[in-house]
Amino acid sequence: MDILAAYKEHLREIGKLSSALSLLHWDQRTQLPNGGQETRAEVVGKLTKMVFELSIADKLGRYLEELEKREDLSEEESASVRVVGKAYRRNKAIPPDFYERFAIAASKAETTWEKAKERSDFLLFRPHLEEMVEYARQFAEYYGYKESPYDALIEEYEPGMTSRELRAVIEPLRQELVPFIKRLQEEGTPPETDFLRGTFSKEEQRSLSLQALRTIGYDFDAGRLDPAVHPFTSSIGPGDVRVTTRFLVDDPLSGLFSSLHEGGHALYDQGIAPKLRWTGLDEGASYGIHESQSRMWENLVGRSLPFWTFFQPTFASTFPAFSGISAEALYRAANVVEPSLIRVEADEVTYNLHIMLRFELEEGLITGKIAAGDLPELWRDAMDRYLGVVPEKDADGALQDVHWSSGLFGYFPSYMLGNLYSSQIFACAQKEVPDLDTHFARGDFAPLLTWLRERVHRFGMIYEPKDLVKRITGEDPDASYFVRYIEEKYSQIYKL
Amino acid sequence: MDILAAYKEHLREIGKLSSALSLLHWDQRTQLPNGGQETRAEVVGKLTKMVFELSIADKLGRYLEELEKREDLSEEESASVRVVGKAYRRNKAIPPDFYERFAIAASKAETTWEKAKERSDFLLFRPHLEEMVEYARQFAEYYGYKESPYDALIEEYEPGMTSRELRAVIEPLRQELVPFIKRLQEEGTPPETDFLRGTFSKEEQRSLSLQALRTIGYDFDAGRLDPAVHPFTSSIGPGDVRVTTRFLVDDPLSGLFSSLHEGGHALYDQGIAPKLRWTGLDEGASYGIHESQSRMWENLVGRSLPFWTFFQPTFASTFPAFSGISAEALYRAANVVEPSLIRVEADEVTYNLHIMLRFELEEGLITGKIAAGDLPELWRDAMDRYLGVVPEKDADGALQDVHWSSGLFGYFPSYMLGNLYSSQIFACAQKEVPDLDTHFARGDFAPLLTWLRERVHRFGMIYEPKDLVKRITGEDPDASYFVRYIEEKYSQIYKL
Repeated sequence: MDILAAYKEHLREIGKLSSALSLLHWDQRTQLPNGGQETRAEVVGKLTKMVFELSIADKLGRYLEELEKREDLSEEESASVRVVGKAYRRNKAIPPDFYERFAIAASKAETTWEKAKERSDFLLFRPHLEEMVEYARQFAEYYGYKESPYDALIEEYEPGMTSRELRAVIEPLRQELVPFIKRLQEEGTPPETDFLRGTFSKEEQRSLSLQALRTIGYDFDAGRLDPAVHPFTSSIGPGDVRVTTRFLVDDPLSGLFSSLHEGGHALYDQGIAPKLRWTGLDEGASYGIHESQSRMWENLVGRSLPFWTFFQPTFASTFPAFSGISAEALYRAANVVEPSLIRVEADEVTYNLHIMLRFELEEGLITGKIAAGDLPELWRDAMDRYLGVVPEKDADGALQDVHWSSGLFGYFPSYMLGNLYSSQIFACAQKEVPDLDTHFARGDFAPLLTWLRERVHRFGMIYEPKDLVKRITGEDPDASYFVRYIEEKYSQIYKL
Repeated sequence: MDILAAYKEHLREIGKLSSALSLLHWDQRTQLPNGGQETRAEVVGKLTKMVFELSIADKLGRYLEELEKREDLSEEESASVRVVGKAYRRNKAIPPDFYERFAIAASKAETTWEKAKERSDFLLFRPHLEEMVEYARQFAEYYGYKESPYDALIEEYEPGMTSRELRAVIEPLRQELVPFIKRLQEEGTPPETDFLRGTFSKEEQRSLSLQALRTIGYDFDAGRLDPAVHPFTSSIGPGDVRVTTRFLVDDPLSGLFSSLHEGGHALYDQGIAPKLRWTGLDEGASYGIHESQSRMWENLVGRSLPFWTFFQPTFASTFPAFSGISAEALYRAANVVEPSLIRVEADEVTYNLHIMLRFELEEGLITGKIAAGDLPELWRDAMDRYLGVVPEKDADGALQDVHWSSGLFGYFPSYMLGNLYSSQIFACAQKEVPDLDTHFARGDFAPLLTWLRERVHRFGMIYEPKDLVKRITGEDPDASYFVRYIEEKYSQIYKL
């Protein structure tokens, strides 16, 4: 067999096992009876190991070496070789023994973190955190980096990003956001929200989410919606991208926005060109770009006045208590800004400050400037400076997120980058597609989706995130779009 | 590594992949969106091939050769070596090329069969049937046999069974059943069923099935219930045995009995000793024994008066239209005997005659005594002799079942054997467990389940079906239990 054909066949093999693995994970979090958990863990372990072994197989190394020299590859083939080659080298850089020790330590750290969070006992978690930081630093050494070990880690989630660049984005952004939030609080008129109180059946919330997802163009012939404790989207294969959501009986909006958020992720995956299947390119360009799509449909679309102009009648026919509440009132109520302790509950104005704080702290941990033991204190201090609220217990502070306990360092910035990319890409769509708002107000989201498919989705991982943003918008990534969007929207809502 | 340990590790590997494969199949038939079908087929194909390759791996052959000589194995280890060794030799006997050609031909045959059945066009299917028969005969040659090539095929489903033995069971059974059915029709008083007419929501039927399954002891912490077009039970692993069922809105009983049937399969799988996991023994002893458990819970329990004595109030509280209908009336209505054309809709009295007919015909096809082209005629003739009803079109005759189109010859007898085993095993339970009926009437099915777990379920495939029946009942398999059960029950219901 020709090397290129053998290479593609190898990737197809990885792709098929990965698809089975995705289903095992999805099922584990949505369907699996309790009694099956133990065996499932073993089955997942086995398939994970098989996929990993294929990803560092010697023959794959030989294919890559050959193909990297070839000049007759198509653009997609070259991109595949680049992306797969990078993953190959990163995976290969980690000694299997080391990885196994890490996986065991991470599993213990996560279990202990759960307990520690429950009891709000940071000291219980601290030795595990120290160990996870040590592992992460070692990973960075194995991967290699130019300037900061943190760069080697963030590369996993946002290829091409560095901590230097992140700081250059974060500093001016913070200088805009912190005082703006203060102004909203001190001079603004907060929206009325009392009418949102009540009890809302999950069955009816589900029907509302189904309608919202159908409206924005999520294809139920290539997906489904199920409840899950922690909502996620699962790409099991082309034609099979499933979303999950969580409904709260005392909040009619939370589950809806969670559905739109996951729906945004799913629209991206559903829009990746079918020909990229099992080429190593059939995923989003980065975690940040992926998050830009979920945040766009959740916030720039779902939390917009045109969306509610269209959706108010649907909402009110599901929950008749809202029949007297105007679209504008619902829109305002869906956009309350409130500095708060918990990241996952934060509104779109304060959210990025939560991320900045985590970036600052985790970068310090990795470079060694911060000791794990100082974390709770530093956390409280930063919360006070950025948001003016301080957690009374570490469960609401340094222990709130699972990421570090599983060894995920360098992941958090993608959440912020997603917000920034989403405003910039959306601004470009607004410029290029006439009357988006008018379309939205009529329930027609196809013009936006078509544009996103054409300009963002279909490319999968062919381009690195920065190149993709430039390709889409004609500009380098630029945080000022986010600032403008936030200041305009919330000045209006808060009547500044 | 010690040979025994290496052998067990190899089986664990097969077990893990098989578990993933079971989930892929279950999901395909209950959850998978349409758009994912194509990719799913490829993923299933890949894992099936991997499992098959492991099942004929040369190293497995070497382990087996060594272990078959060893005398220090435990009873379970010996049984594992016997069962796995047999499958190894059978799989190894088939040239991979031949198997691949067969798989492709079977897939085409099944597609054509679907069309042929739709149009009731036997001639369209005939060349494929001829091809499938040819393949089956060739399989038999590869497997080897003593007396009849049919024996080599039935061995797959009912180890140790032969066509000679089957005939010895069938002949006397038919001589009892055919005249008995005639008597029921001519002299009996059929039960009243008019009150079953109506429309019954699937949601409420589902709630009824959940209650029935809980009542008989199905463990929802180790399983779940989902709708499926063709109900089945899926053993994904210990602690994860899922049932499916199908509800008809114009029939309040069909879905319930389908749930009890699949629940019976599931109770068996849930009861296999955990230590047999991934030893090659963690399945039912045979298709026939498995069917004995589903038929027992569906018919001997579910269609009994004591069951309805307990279940009538639940039934009537779900469907208030039945609040004036007595347990006895429901019991009678659930036990109508009616010679009919379609096997899967047949009652427990006429069901076995459908099987006998298929056995007669498929055995003739395999031994060459019957030509595929004569099938429709022979089918009508046998239906007339056995049941006194004759299909007007082949869709209700020789085209009604999928089995032959997928190359499954030798499978049908398990359905009959299941009925026979179930009566014999149930009679033994009634003898050994005092007052079963009284327990049932109180909604207490634990005494039966406990007995079945102890005497049947936990052994998995350790014993061959005949040995297992003897071990359970102290007697060889004996069809007279079934005849006695049928004649007593239906003489009473039909007031003979």
